[in-house]
Amino acid sequence: MITDPALVASFAHDEAAGAPYALPAAVVQPHGTAEVAAVVAHCAEHGVPVVARGAGTGLSGGANAVRGAVVVSFSAMDRVLRIDTEERLAVVQPGVVNEDLRAACAAKGLWYPPDPASAPWSTIGGNVATNAGGLCCVKYGVTRDYVLGLEVVTGRGDVVRLGRRTAKSSAGFELAGLLVGSEGTLGLVTEITVRLRGERAQEHTVVGYFADLPSAGRAVARVVASGVVPSALELVDRFSLRAVDEWKNMGLTDGGDVLLLARCDAPGAVGAQEADTVLACFEAAGATWSARSGDPAEADALFAARRLVYPALERLGMVLSEDVCVPRTLLPEMLARLADVAARHGVHIATLAHAGDGNLHPMLVVPRGDERELARCRGVFEEVVDQALALGGTVTGEHGVGLLKMRGLADELGPAVLDLHRGIKRAWDPAGILNPGKVFTA
Amino acid sequence: MITDPALVASFAHDEAAGAPYALPAAVVQPHGTAEVAAVVAHCAEHGVPVVARGAGTGLSGGANAVRGAVVVSFSAMDRVLRIDTEERLAVVQPGVVNEDLRAACAAKGLWYPPDPASAPWSTIGGNVATNAGGLCCVKYGVTRDYVLGLEVVTGRGDVVRLGRRTAKSSAGFELAGLLVGSEGTLGLVTEITVRLRGERAQEHTVVGYFADLPSAGRAVARVVASGVVPSALELVDRFSLRAVDEWKNMGLTDGGDVLLLARCDAPGAVGAQEADTVLACFEAAGATWSARSGDPAEADALFAARRLVYPALERLGMVLSEDVCVPRTLLPEMLARLADVAARHGVHIATLAHAGDGNLHPMLVVPRGDERELARCRGVFEEVVDQALALGGTVTGEHGVGLLKMRGLADELGPAVLDLHRGIKRAWDPAGILNPGKVFTA
Repeated sequence: MITDPALVASFAHDEAAGAPYALPAAVVQPHGTAEVAAVVAHCAEHGVPVVARGAGTGLSGGANAVRGAVVVSFSAMDRVLRIDTEERLAVVQPGVVNEDLRAACAAKGLWYPPDPASAPWSTIGGNVATNAGGLCCVKYGVTRDYVLGLEVVTGRGDVVRLGRRTAKSSAGFELAGLLVGSEGTLGLVTEITVRLRGERAQEHTVVGYFADLPSAGRAVARVVASGVVPSALELVDRFSLRAVDEWKNMGLTDGGDVLLLARCDAPGAVGAQEADTVLACFEAAGATWSARSGDPAEADALFAARRLVYPALERLGMVLSEDVCVPRTLLPEMLARLADVAARHGVHIATLAHAGDGNLHPMLVVPRGDERELARCRGVFEEVVDQALALGGTVTGEHGVGLLKMRGLADELGPAVLDLHRGIKRAWDPAGILNPGKVFTA
Repeated sequence: MITDPALVASFAHDEAAGAPYALPAAVVQPHGTAEVAAVVAHCAEHGVPVVARGAGTGLSGGANAVRGAVVVSFSAMDRVLRIDTEERLAVVQPGVVNEDLRAACAAKGLWYPPDPASAPWSTIGGNVATNAGGLCCVKYGVTRDYVLGLEVVTGRGDVVRLGRRTAKSSAGFELAGLLVGSEGTLGLVTEITVRLRGERAQEHTVVGYFADLPSAGRAVARVVASGVVPSALELVDRFSLRAVDEWKNMGLTDGGDVLLLARCDAPGAVGAQEADTVLACFEAAGATWSARSGDPAEADALFAARRLVYPALERLGMVLSEDVCVPRTLLPEMLARLADVAARHGVHIATLAHAGDGNLHPMLVVPRGDERELARCRGVFEEVVDQALALGGTVTGEHGVGLLKMRGLADELGPAVLDLHRGIKRAWDPAGILNPGKVFTA
């Protein structure tokens, strides 16, 4: 157990810009489920808050410590316990890093699809807590779609097994799925059984540059209407491209102001046909430049450039990252509303989007330490949230609610559904010790 | 409102053989959500049990009336409200028949995959209540995988909207998924938004006859290990084949004692390659006869024969149908244990299986009115349930718990998880009026 204030400080918050946090009273790094259960039972008895923590890469403040809390860090529970090639499942501890699991599966010819941008650092436990998505979920679904079973320590300190090892089940309430995305408010996940897929076929990459967001939005709409389900369909806007160019001088803005990156992975000749269809959609929507990339290295470089956007922006200041998701046909409308909000407030919003999902990550850069500008930008993003809700969207596609989206969530769900959340919370955590003050108010 | 005892009798039970039921006090057939809410609010105030009912095709007693209950039949809420071809979703009332929705989608080039054997009669509301599966879920998943959003009347009579219209969301608890499979114990579903897929490619059918269950089981294991995910992989045993032959004289048992039916639907040349792989697996496992069917009519006839098994057995008496599901690599072991249980008790168990899912439907025929034999056969199936649990399986793959699987569910989940069910139930239905006495005890 760590209680030295200088040491616990590094466990006090995640990567959410501007979300409040306090120093925890203590940090524990359990080595197994029994230790987790003992800690929670002790905290329940004494009314001590418990905050679970993976790698701390969250963007909503969900892992931020609260006053007097015990932070349970899963860094020492980081083993892949089993990969069953015949049943196509893996059993892992929560502290396993996403990419480590993916690599272990790949070594056996299997694939764990969820691929959040944080995959090199974020843990499966954290991915489960936020129901993490990623690039390939446009075709392959999100974390919840891969969680078969969980071992969980409830707020009473009970150890329970939820879910199943079978392909399907109708046995009682879907509690494993309920725990996925519950952000540490219902229980602490101590073991995860995930479904795996077989290795996928070679991906074909299609690249398109567009003069403006509306034409890129029309290209996405055409792809959706074509019936092709790409394995990735990403949008990178000009502010994002420029930030990377200013850092890495990659010439990303030479082709146009908005970049669309698509991948198709249907096996055999169909994959190439899908890529041709996507290319035709890009061209018909008025791409300034587009091509199927025959060179995997070049394609990888463009996807790598997309991943550089966030660090490139971080060079310029503190990055506020949004995560709204709208019905996918309304992506062009949401992009237009983003531009309108930005113009009204005189800010530059850089946007990455999982375009095929309608999931947008607008980003604002705030000079570090400028609390007034931070507050102003938070206000801008509250408007973005309202615009997404007005389009029938959701306040968070894949980052979770944490602290930053609580107002938006309350508006999205309404009081009756929030009350159902509270009732469920009482069943799992009667003492109210698990991640208190997150997601919704008690 | 219907209160005539002669008329309410036809709403008193579903198709579960031997599950208890009582005459309801009244049957209501609401025409909209507001009427449902008014009925539930009235019943909550007066402590009157409410039992929701779709087409009554359930096999576990989940829709059976209890003493004094109001049965809410959704037969008058049977409209497909909207099919959105761009967002690829449909909004339906709960009383829509599964095949009617599938046909309406097909007319727009879209596909709603869940295909329980009851699809010509069962309703989407009932499918949601039990998390219904079917033949194609081996590749395409079950009802829960297609439910995006729900409108629900809670046990307080509140109308709430759960879930989303977007491709993904991490906004609060996954309450839509929780309601799917809750068998009317948490709320009454009054509107359902389902995700759709595009039309699928032509299916290739592979047929294999085997001399015995172990060799058919090995064929299934080989298919699973091959990495091919068929769009159906069904097993029909000799007692099932004989029952159809005795009725329809189709010559089904001429080729062998056990029939495996597989379909592959990958687009383009890959689908044919998959079918070749499945055929090779059948041959390597010692099929007595096997072939790829080039003739869609012939293939359809074999799948139709599979669907005739249940009615063929019903000609002989009351059919008890089991629904256990085991890890799919343990299907051969479960088949062996079934044979052992049958031999010990001197009964013939006819078995259909969604073999690729490890989901078995052992069936026993009981002479109508023979209560003693019914009780004996129930006891045989309790042993079957225990064998499935011993293999890490589940008591119900797709039929739901209802009344018949309550003992097994309690053993599967254990007291702590059942308590979590009760706590969640209290949050949704504080008066305990929704389908009382089903799934778990209060």
